Amino acid sequence: MAVYTEVSDEDLVEFIAQYDIGEVVSCKGIAEGVENSNYLLHTTKSAYILTLYEKRVREEDLPFFLGLMEHLANKGIPCPQPLTAMDGKALRQLCGRPAALTTFLEGMWPRKIQPFHCEQLGRALANFHRAGSDYDLFRANSLSLDSWRPQFEQCRARAHEVHPQLTDTLAREVDFLETNWPRDLPFGVCHADLFPDNVFFIGKELSGLIDFYFACNDALAYDLIVCMNAWCFERDGSFNVTKARMLLSAYAKERPLSQEELNALPILARGAAVRFLLTRLYDWLNHPEGAFVKPKDPLEYLTILSFHQSVGDVGAYGLDKGALHG
Amino acid sequence: MAVYTEVSDEDLVEFIAQYDIGEVVSCKGIAEGVENSNYLLHTTKSAYILTLYEKRVREEDLPFFLGLMEHLANKGIPCPQPLTAMDGKALRQLCGRPAALTTFLEGMWPRKIQPFHCEQLGRALANFHRAGSDYDLFRANSLSLDSWRPQFEQCRARAHEVHPQLTDTLAREVDFLETNWPRDLPFGVCHADLFPDNVFFIGKELSGLIDFYFACNDALAYDLIVCMNAWCFERDGSFNVTKARMLLSAYAKERPLSQEELNALPILARGAAVRFLLTRLYDWLNHPEGAFVKPKDPLEYLTILSFHQSVGDVGAYGLDKGALHG
Repeated sequence: MAVYTEVSDEDLVEFIAQYDIGEVVSCKGIAEGVENSNYLLHTTKSAYILTLYEKRVREEDLPFFLGLMEHLANKGIPCPQPLTAMDGKALRQLCGRPAALTTFLEGMWPRKIQPFHCEQLGRALANFHRAGSDYDLFRANSLSLDSWRPQFEQCRARAHEVHPQLTDTLAREVDFLETNWPRDLPFGVCHADLFPDNVFFIGKELSGLIDFYFACNDALAYDLIVCMNAWCFERDGSFNVTKARMLLSAYAKERPLSQEELNALPILARGAAVRFLLTRLYDWLNHPEGAFVKPKDPLEYLTILSFHQSVGDVGAYGLDKGALHG
Repeated sequence: MAVYTEVSDEDLVEFIAQYDIGEVVSCKGIAEGVENSNYLLHTTKSAYILTLYEKRVREEDLPFFLGLMEHLANKGIPCPQPLTAMDGKALRQLCGRPAALTTFLEGMWPRKIQPFHCEQLGRALANFHRAGSDYDLFRANSLSLDSWRPQFEQCRARAHEVHPQLTDTLAREVDFLETNWPRDLPFGVCHADLFPDNVFFIGKELSGLIDFYFACNDALAYDLIVCMNAWCFERDGSFNVTKARMLLSAYAKERPLSQEELNALPILARGAAVRFLLTRLYDWLNHPEGAFVKPKDPLEYLTILSFHQSVGDVGAYGLDKGALHG
């Protein structure tokens, strides 16, 4: 639940005057999102999102994120399009913070995931990956393999407070991933955080992808498997193989998966589980007592990790091994 | 910073289907406001505010509030107009809470108050009072004179934690107000909480009054003086007599103040200061440690109270005593 920076009406009017978007008629802080301050802005022309970037986003990464949205939007991917001010810049300052305006995407994120959501997501993610293939800028995934051991060390002494087996499980899993992580898979621009609250639907149609502030270059299949972990497990921790099949096969129809990618899915899924387990664990152990933003439960991802540790091959994800690759 | 109840997309679609307002295209929780959950809803027809009423609003008061908005909007007061569903009801249920939809008012609340804001506010408040004069329902002001002693008693033992003189000051002031509170002033429907964040402007024009959830029947001049306290003191605690004169005289042009009302303004101002001092003191002493919603500073209202205790007559508010009444 964000809005950390309060924008005065006068600062806002001055900021908006630098764009050709009419005059401000309202501006409401949006309660969703935890990284940045977001406002839904109505002008005499249209609706927009105003984002002020808070501490957790590194300012030097913003050109990558904004340029990517621009690149994707120009190729027809339904994502927010950064607006350029009259001086030609999309990244500006407001209230002493980096700030940008984007188009507003209509749609609602699905609270209760159904198989058709997963099918649409698979197709949209593949189109995203294809559209990103000629994007020029590069940003390493700062939350991938190299980061897991240091992150684990930061939490090691207290991980048992969350679950008695967590320290051992993570220690062994980080060892395993460091030894076995696949390195030669097709690479490209990934969203890397495509959870349900970042995907909008209007009725049964996917209408938008938002929140590109973890986007980076990584294995494309890793991005897909982040989605599988986020969309295909039920609240009780059980794996919904129908949803997984819908997601993976819809994706593969648009961008066929190689045999190497198919073989790697189980270990990518373990790594993707560890990535969210570790950041959630850190937030859980370090959030201020009584803070309003309740941290997400790390154990959800311990359950997901355990599932993938037991998987033999991609058959467990509802796939016929030979059916998907091109 | 509100949004306490999370509304699922499915519940929302079902709820909206009961109104003739098109289909939902987006719904964003609004970060402002602390009493209820508010969403800015876009449909294929227009923009609306969806409010879910949380614990601090008594359900039995909702017909008074919603009926008042309806009554005022019909008379041209720029306030949210409750929408009636197809079954003829404006007050419904959503996610187990009372809920209502209203029209969306464009505008921004002023962060930096200027004299023209006060002038427009005075005029709008007088028009509000005139428009409310034939509203049928009645709701006593539960935060007026009768409540101040019990509220003080709840905080008495710990008031000194906030300021060493606060206990004595409040004890004497409540005695004084109980003895001298005026009882025969013109009564009517009051907003009773018309702080800057409840008044919208587009450019220099007042465009809306919102948040009617403290509205009640009380002395109309009391409502005016609540505004003076909220709009005419600077951040350093100094009283801006230019703003006060603008507010009071613009009000009196639309609804002349009687000599009794003019004479009563200083004591009404003291009572209005005590009302907000007490609720802020209570919230200050009782908010959970580390809570995200920071309570407002009660001492701001101790300064305001001290100012009014030193006032001889309405000359101190920038008024020529004889000039305003009809």
